[in-house]
Amino acid sequence: MEFNITFNLDGGKNLTAPAQAGETLLAVARRVSLAIDAPCSGNGTCGKCRIKLLSGAADSTESRHIPPEEYADGARLACSTKVAGDAVVYVPATALAYQNRMKVTDLGTGREREVFTSFQEELRNLDLTGDAGLELMPVRLGEPSLDDAMADKERLLIALAGQIEGNIAVSLSAQRRLPRILRESGFSCLCLLRREKDSSQGCRILDFFPADTEPVLPGLAIDIGTTSVSILLVNLQTGEPLAVGNAGNGQIRYGADVINRIIESVKPGGLDRLYRAVIDDCIAPLIRQLCENAGVEPERVYRAAVAGNTTMTHLFLKVPPEHLRLEPYVPAFFDAGDLRGGDVGIGIHPDAEVTIAPAVGSYVGGDITAGAFSSMIFKKESLSLLVDLGTNGELVFGGSEFLMSCACSAGPAFEGGDISCGMRATDGAVEAVTIDEETMEPKLSIIGGQKPAGLCGSGLIDAIGELFRCGVINAKGKVSREGKRVRRDEYGQGCYVVAFAEESESGRDILLTETDIDSFIRAKGAIFSAIRTMLTMLDFPMDAIENVYVAGGIGSGINIKQAIAIGMFPNLSLDQYHYIGNSSLSGAYAMLTSRKAADMVAGIGKSMTYLELSSHPSYMDEFVAACFLPHTDAALFANG
Amino acid sequence: MEFNITFNLDGGKNLTAPAQAGETLLAVARRVSLAIDAPCSGNGTCGKCRIKLLSGAADSTESRHIPPEEYADGARLACSTKVAGDAVVYVPATALAYQNRMKVTDLGTGREREVFTSFQEELRNLDLTGDAGLELMPVRLGEPSLDDAMADKERLLIALAGQIEGNIAVSLSAQRRLPRILRESGFSCLCLLRREKDSSQGCRILDFFPADTEPVLPGLAIDIGTTSVSILLVNLQTGEPLAVGNAGNGQIRYGADVINRIIESVKPGGLDRLYRAVIDDCIAPLIRQLCENAGVEPERVYRAAVAGNTTMTHLFLKVPPEHLRLEPYVPAFFDAGDLRGGDVGIGIHPDAEVTIAPAVGSYVGGDITAGAFSSMIFKKESLSLLVDLGTNGELVFGGSEFLMSCACSAGPAFEGGDISCGMRATDGAVEAVTIDEETMEPKLSIIGGQKPAGLCGSGLIDAIGELFRCGVINAKGKVSREGKRVRRDEYGQGCYVVAFAEESESGRDILLTETDIDSFIRAKGAIFSAIRTMLTMLDFPMDAIENVYVAGGIGSGINIKQAIAIGMFPNLSLDQYHYIGNSSLSGAYAMLTSRKAADMVAGIGKSMTYLELSSHPSYMDEFVAACFLPHTDAALFANG
Repeated sequence: MEFNITFNLDGGKNLTAPAQAGETLLAVARRVSLAIDAPCSGNGTCGKCRIKLLSGAADSTESRHIPPEEYADGARLACSTKVAGDAVVYVPATALAYQNRMKVTDLGTGREREVFTSFQEELRNLDLTGDAGLELMPVRLGEPSLDDAMADKERLLIALAGQIEGNIAVSLSAQRRLPRILRESGFSCLCLLRREKDSSQGCRILDFFPADTEPVLPGLAIDIGTTSVSILLVNLQTGEPLAVGNAGNGQIRYGADVINRIIESVKPGGLDRLYRAVIDDCIAPLIRQLCENAGVEPERVYRAAVAGNTTMTHLFLKVPPEHLRLEPYVPAFFDAGDLRGGDVGIGIHPDAEVTIAPAVGSYVGGDITAGAFSSMIFKKESLSLLVDLGTNGELVFGGSEFLMSCACSAGPAFEGGDISCGMRATDGAVEAVTIDEETMEPKLSIIGGQKPAGLCGSGLIDAIGELFRCGVINAKGKVSREGKRVRRDEYGQGCYVVAFAEESESGRDILLTETDIDSFIRAKGAIFSAIRTMLTMLDFPMDAIENVYVAGGIGSGINIKQAIAIGMFPNLSLDQYHYIGNSSLSGAYAMLTSRKAADMVAGIGKSMTYLELSSHPSYMDEFVAACFLPHTDAALFANG
Repeated sequence: MEFNITFNLDGGKNLTAPAQAGETLLAVARRVSLAIDAPCSGNGTCGKCRIKLLSGAADSTESRHIPPEEYADGARLACSTKVAGDAVVYVPATALAYQNRMKVTDLGTGREREVFTSFQEELRNLDLTGDAGLELMPVRLGEPSLDDAMADKERLLIALAGQIEGNIAVSLSAQRRLPRILRESGFSCLCLLRREKDSSQGCRILDFFPADTEPVLPGLAIDIGTTSVSILLVNLQTGEPLAVGNAGNGQIRYGADVINRIIESVKPGGLDRLYRAVIDDCIAPLIRQLCENAGVEPERVYRAAVAGNTTMTHLFLKVPPEHLRLEPYVPAFFDAGDLRGGDVGIGIHPDAEVTIAPAVGSYVGGDITAGAFSSMIFKKESLSLLVDLGTNGELVFGGSEFLMSCACSAGPAFEGGDISCGMRATDGAVEAVTIDEETMEPKLSIIGGQKPAGLCGSGLIDAIGELFRCGVINAKGKVSREGKRVRRDEYGQGCYVVAFAEESESGRDILLTETDIDSFIRAKGAIFSAIRTMLTMLDFPMDAIENVYVAGGIGSGINIKQAIAIGMFPNLSLDQYHYIGNSSLSGAYAMLTSRKAADMVAGIGKSMTYLELSSHPSYMDEFVAACFLPHTDAALFANG
């Protein structure tokens, strides 16, 4: 039987999809590219895919995430509700994974722009700019006649032979344009040349322009995150951004984290689905939109640099990622090598040079090698730590002498996974909290300034830090005071009310339960114990770290003082901490504008070692010790 | 108003298409890819698009090609009949351009196979085989472990570094296959390497195979003719064909000759339509079919060589051909340069080397440079003439010292254009004729052995030669005897009845009119005068030609003695004439199997000169003198 399911979106938009009896509402929504958030990938455990059945029939069972009275009112989980007839379903904005993701990052705020501008200046100081290998060369030809009917291309090559040494190839797309451009500009034109990296290979003409024009040469820096994709369209002559944008990674409907994506990729047709979800549903349309905004033809984008974690890079290139999650965790490639626009289906110039930041291991990818470049820690004699907190947490420790990296699965908690009131850093998210020690009343800072809908990563760190400071919770994360803001269920499990129902966007209480706090403590413990394990293994004390660079989506709003207070970050002085924004995107930007920078990122990939924490004997002990506030070894955080 | 037009095809198949009032039936048929033959491109002059209105309404005017009684019976020209309601239309097999084209060529007969086999032997003698730059190299890797989690690609490159010097690139499509193949064959595999032409560029891995297999390495030789496309799928290790096929060039619905195609290309969207017609409707499906027949995956075809006339090559690469027909007749390129599979949309390996035979001028293309190679005239000290008669006629004269080429528009008459009873060399075509001098009764040899439907090129040459020999027509081509087989119309124009209505397939008389004979004489005159002009210009007498190589679709069945008798070919002894089959396809085959041969074809392109006949002062005089049987200067054909 086929039925119609109508999704009633927040904001008044409707989407109707045909559906078979027995399909889950989540699957129906995914089929029409409506990405209802389901970090647990639809197995009913996270409770994020909550929707409301407005009318019609659907089969569902009750869920621990939905109290009986709300269930009676139509609340359902989309992942565990099956089509049984025509139905109309309300999808609240908080259930949509795509919208407005990363509002606060990627040059979207003054702080982000400041960070990017100072990075640009650093590149200029290091002479790592304006080195994309492209050059505009004017050429004037003799006009053809019946006595000289030499073909356009050969006529051009003869004229250029006096100006350029070595072999000259001409891209087919340029050959297609040549006849018209020559005749429109009286047999003069501008040639866009790319000097090949290996100078013995001569150069290639990528495009032609009329003689009297001043063409812009655009390039793309692309950061492919598990959750979202950020793209900078850059003027390669000036290094200045022409447009910037980001979009949810379309793969999110197949799972919130890389493990679920890899599992999906192994299913029949799964690799193709994931490939299309990130290329056709996300990157290609975003590129088209940025190009349109900047007045640039996509097929006249002449260079691209891409950074992403190892799974994202595999999926971007449609290379099976399956062995990334099977022992011994071997990627198909570290460095994909030099690719051309025609190899990747993103609609840019077919002969554009496409450079992919290399990976170091299955869980330390090109986002980290690019990030290690943009942190510049590889150039410093002193020792630094890079902490990149996105959907996963990755760490790099070292300096000009060595670089070691590792990955810990800390991310989900910071992006809303595993936390009942967690959410991404989008409108309605509480991003900062202070709590009055006496009254236990909170003061919330909310993205967008509206009613609170949940807590994003930085809000969680603040809330837990404040609860611990005020003694509302103890070192084990258990609620140890009583009051208006504290509740306990029938089993004695406590929780703190961040916002009462009447204050919140959803009209439901926003609660931080002991289970949530426990999940969060495990996440922060994973990060700290990873840092400890790396340093211990290399025989360095914590205070060997001279600088900490904090990057990634969570980094922008993070309160470093609180992060130290709860034992997530090492107990160093605040001026040793530096926020560097989306370092993966910055690294891709550097690779885009400078071949020398791209070579340096490749060098970082080759020299960086990778520590597989899961197989390291002392990691588990470190982790258990770190699952306290701030730590079982309180001395580590004395005077913090 | 929208109506339905049903095309009732010979053989019982029906095709129904929606149509707007006022559209021509020809346009409706083209829209559903039913290629009704219209050599004049639909302007009502050739009369080939004859169909029959079985029922329903249509607007049409009478045509000189359709007698009133046949018009009354429903006979119409598709190009000048307009939709005025629902209608059912009968399309006879003779009106379809595609079917069974070139049955008698391209390795389809013993003679063609013989010609090809001796060409293969010649290539072997010259050491021009097995040089496609491809090599299968076995490699064994250490297995990865938790202590050695090197990525697959880097692991492979390290293992290969001991076996190969220089840079090794790996195609993305190969990287996609590597993880599975390594694990299926215990970390051993075969690498398919291509040594780059410029050895400083190292090599590229195109593909991987399990260690214990013996993969076939396929390549494609493609001849793109104006009328039809021929493709050889070749085993590059042995040089032997795996499959051979040909298909009508899908562009034929936009005009029978290159001029009409170029005119179409300038219309809005025209270039794209022509490109798709030859790629999507013809070459790509033919490749898929040949690959399927041979059990080969198209994306595992590793090399291709393409030969075609200048317009066909431009359209194959989607390069605007418009200036080929505008003075001073300048192509966009002579040599398109080295292209990759990904540049041309024919579905083969994206990094396959694709070589295009170079052109010499707007009307002497890669089919002729490839053909000049396969005739081997460029290696001979003695002087030779190459005559390629396809839809156009092209000539090359010279030897190892020089090569000169020219083109004459002689083709249409040999393929059915301009001749009322003309048709292509397909089933029902009369391919040979003898006439009894006394009774004037003809003896016909018919392709397929059925009732005659018309005359193909070789049949025309025979018929006119015999009519001239028997005195039925005089030196001016006028009918000068009377009898049962001779008729005259009211204006006194005579004709010869090749087959009476009751003997013919269509049930109509097959007539050779004085107008037809005149068209034919102009065509043969164009060829002979082109030969004369070239030789005279270079100051050579006719008997300087030691060998004549006859190539092209018409060449197979041609009666050389008759062709000399009517003054089409020079008066040389028959053993100086050699039939070399589809020399464009043979040349592409040589370029495919040997890079050295491809370089030689490129060299021919660079050294061959091009004579533009239309701008040569004496050509018109030569042409007028050649428009007699055999020639105004009878001494040229004395003792012929």
